[in-house]
Amino acid sequence: MQKEQVIIIGSGPAGLTAAIYAARANLNPLIIAGNAVGGQIATTSEVENFPGFDSILGPDLVQHMQAQAEKFGTRFEYDEVTEVDFRPGQPLRLKTYSNDYEAESVIITTGASAKKLEIPGETEFVGRGVSYCATCDGFFFKGKDVLVIGGGDSALQEALFLTKFANRVRVVHRRDQFRAGDFLQQKATENEKIQPVFDTVLDRIDGQGKVQAVQARNVKTGVVERWDTDGVFVFVGHFPNSGLFKGQLDMDPQGFLVVDKHMMTNVPGVFAAGEIMDPIFKQAISSAGQGCMAAIAAERWIESREEKTTA
Amino acid sequence: MQKEQVIIIGSGPAGLTAAIYAARANLNPLIIAGNAVGGQIATTSEVENFPGFDSILGPDLVQHMQAQAEKFGTRFEYDEVTEVDFRPGQPLRLKTYSNDYEAESVIITTGASAKKLEIPGETEFVGRGVSYCATCDGFFFKGKDVLVIGGGDSALQEALFLTKFANRVRVVHRRDQFRAGDFLQQKATENEKIQPVFDTVLDRIDGQGKVQAVQARNVKTGVVERWDTDGVFVFVGHFPNSGLFKGQLDMDPQGFLVVDKHMMTNVPGVFAAGEIMDPIFKQAISSAGQGCMAAIAAERWIESREEKTTA
Repeated sequence: MQKEQVIIIGSGPAGLTAAIYAARANLNPLIIAGNAVGGQIATTSEVENFPGFDSILGPDLVQHMQAQAEKFGTRFEYDEVTEVDFRPGQPLRLKTYSNDYEAESVIITTGASAKKLEIPGETEFVGRGVSYCATCDGFFFKGKDVLVIGGGDSALQEALFLTKFANRVRVVHRRDQFRAGDFLQQKATENEKIQPVFDTVLDRIDGQGKVQAVQARNVKTGVVERWDTDGVFVFVGHFPNSGLFKGQLDMDPQGFLVVDKHMMTNVPGVFAAGEIMDPIFKQAISSAGQGCMAAIAAERWIESREEKTTA
Repeated sequence: MQKEQVIIIGSGPAGLTAAIYAARANLNPLIIAGNAVGGQIATTSEVENFPGFDSILGPDLVQHMQAQAEKFGTRFEYDEVTEVDFRPGQPLRLKTYSNDYEAESVIITTGASAKKLEIPGETEFVGRGVSYCATCDGFFFKGKDVLVIGGGDSALQEALFLTKFANRVRVVHRRDQFRAGDFLQQKATENEKIQPVFDTVLDRIDGQGKVQAVQARNVKTGVVERWDTDGVFVFVGHFPNSGLFKGQLDMDPQGFLVVDKHMMTNVPGVFAAGEIMDPIFKQAISSAGQGCMAAIAAERWIESREEKTTA
C-alpha cells in the first residue's frame, strides 16, 4: 500500500496544472496519467486560443506542462485507476493495474470524451477538417463550407456559432427532426446560412491531406450522395469519464461530477477539475484554471485537517 | 455614443483571455485597458506557475496575450471607465474620460489590489524579495528566512504555506494579537518555523539588488531593530476594484462581485472574471480560465437574446 498526500487522476490541462500547483506547494503529487499524457488537447493539432501562445500544437503544449510539473517534483505513473474506495473515513483508497494507494486527497481530472461517428476517415482527419469543438476550430473555417453532425442542443448551438465564419452550415441529423430545444431550433431556422438535412447519416469522410468531401446516405430512401465540404463538426454526444465513481460521488444526470466552489466533491478530500465537472465551457484554459483551483483547495484542505500526519 | 457588442473592462489575464475568446467568436470586442495592459501579473517578474511556460516574465506573458487578442481583432483603448449605467433595459452604458459607449454585454475584469505597506524599499524590491503572493513566490525561498507582514487569515495561511520552503517565518503584526481565526492561530502556534512578532511594524526594507534586511520598530517601546532576512511577504489587505459598480451590481461583504455559474452578475449581460469575483484562488491561470468562461457565456447570451440586433 503506497501512501500519498495528493493523487491526481488524469493528465490533461486540468491534471497537469493541478500537478504544477500541488508540486509547488510541496505536496509531492503523483499523477496517474493513463496510457499517455495529455487528454483531449493532445489529440488536436494547432491550438490558437490558449492564452500566451500565439499558436502551438496540442501535443507540444502538453509536453511543456508535463516538463513544468516534473521540474517541481511531480511523479507520473502510466497506469489506469481500476477501482476507488472513497467511503467515509480517511484515507482514500485507489487501485491501479499495478499498485494499491492510500491518499490524503485525490484530484479527479478524467475529462470527457466526444462520441465518435466511427466511420472511415473520421480519425484520419481529426485536426484536418474533422473537429469536435466549434469554439476551438470555427475560426479556421472563414468563408468555408462545413457540416455539423447531430441534432441536439450542442449541435445547433455549435452550428449557430459556425455561421459566424462559414458560408454554409449543413446540419446533418439521422432523424426527421431535431432534438434541440424550440428556441435553438427557431434560431437555426431563421439563420440563412444553416441548412438542415434530415434522415441522413455520413458513411465516410474523404480527402487528400484534409477533408474535401463526404459520402452521405438517406436512411429512409437509401440514396447515397457525395458532397464537397471543408469541415465536419461532430456533435453526437459527449460523456464524462466518471464511470469509476458511480455510487461514490455525486453526479448530475449526465454523469458530470458536482463540486462546490472549492472544487470539492461530496466526499471530503476528493476534488475535481476540468471537463469531468464542467459540462459548459470545456476549454483547455478553463480546465487548467480549474486544475489550479482544485490543487490550492486540496493544499488548504490537507493543511486544515485536525489529525494531519506530519508530512 | 459608440455602440459595441462586447466591452471588456480591464486587461489582466482574465480580460485578455476574454478578449481572445470573444474575438474568435467574431464579437469584435473592445478592451478598455486602463493606463497600461496587464494587471497585477505585469508587475511581477518571473512566473513559473502559468502552465505551458517553464519560466516567463510577467510583462512578457501579458504581451503574448495582448498580441494574440489583437491578432483576432480585439481593439484596445488606453482609457479608464469613469461611470457605468447598468439600469434594467438594454443597452448597458459606460463612460470613459474620452468617450461614451453602449454595449450589448460587458465583461468586468478590473481585478483586485494588494494593500501596500507604503514604506521605503517596498516598491523597489517587488519581485526581488517583496511579494504579495506566497503561492506564486514561496518556491523561490527554499531554505531562506522570510517575514510575513499582517495578522489576519491570509497572513497566517500564507505563513503556514511558506513554512514548506523557508527555514524561518517571522509573522510581524502591528497589534498585540492576531486577527486570524482560532484554528489558523493554533496551526501557526504549533508550527516550529513560525515566530510571531507582535506590536511591530516595518519602517523600511533594505538591500542591494534584492531584499537583505529590514528596519523594524516596536510600536509600544519605540525600539528600532535591524533584521537580516531574504523576503518580505505582505498580507495587510486585498481589495477588489469594484467601487465603480457599487449600488448597481451584487457584491459580497468584501466588495467582490457575485456571479452565477455562467459568470453573470445580477444584471443580465454583465459578466465578471478574475480577481474581481474570486476572493479565493487569485492566480493568473485561474483568472484566465474565468475570462474564457465569461466570454463564452457572453457570446451565448448575446446569441440567445430575442431582440438581437443583426451584428
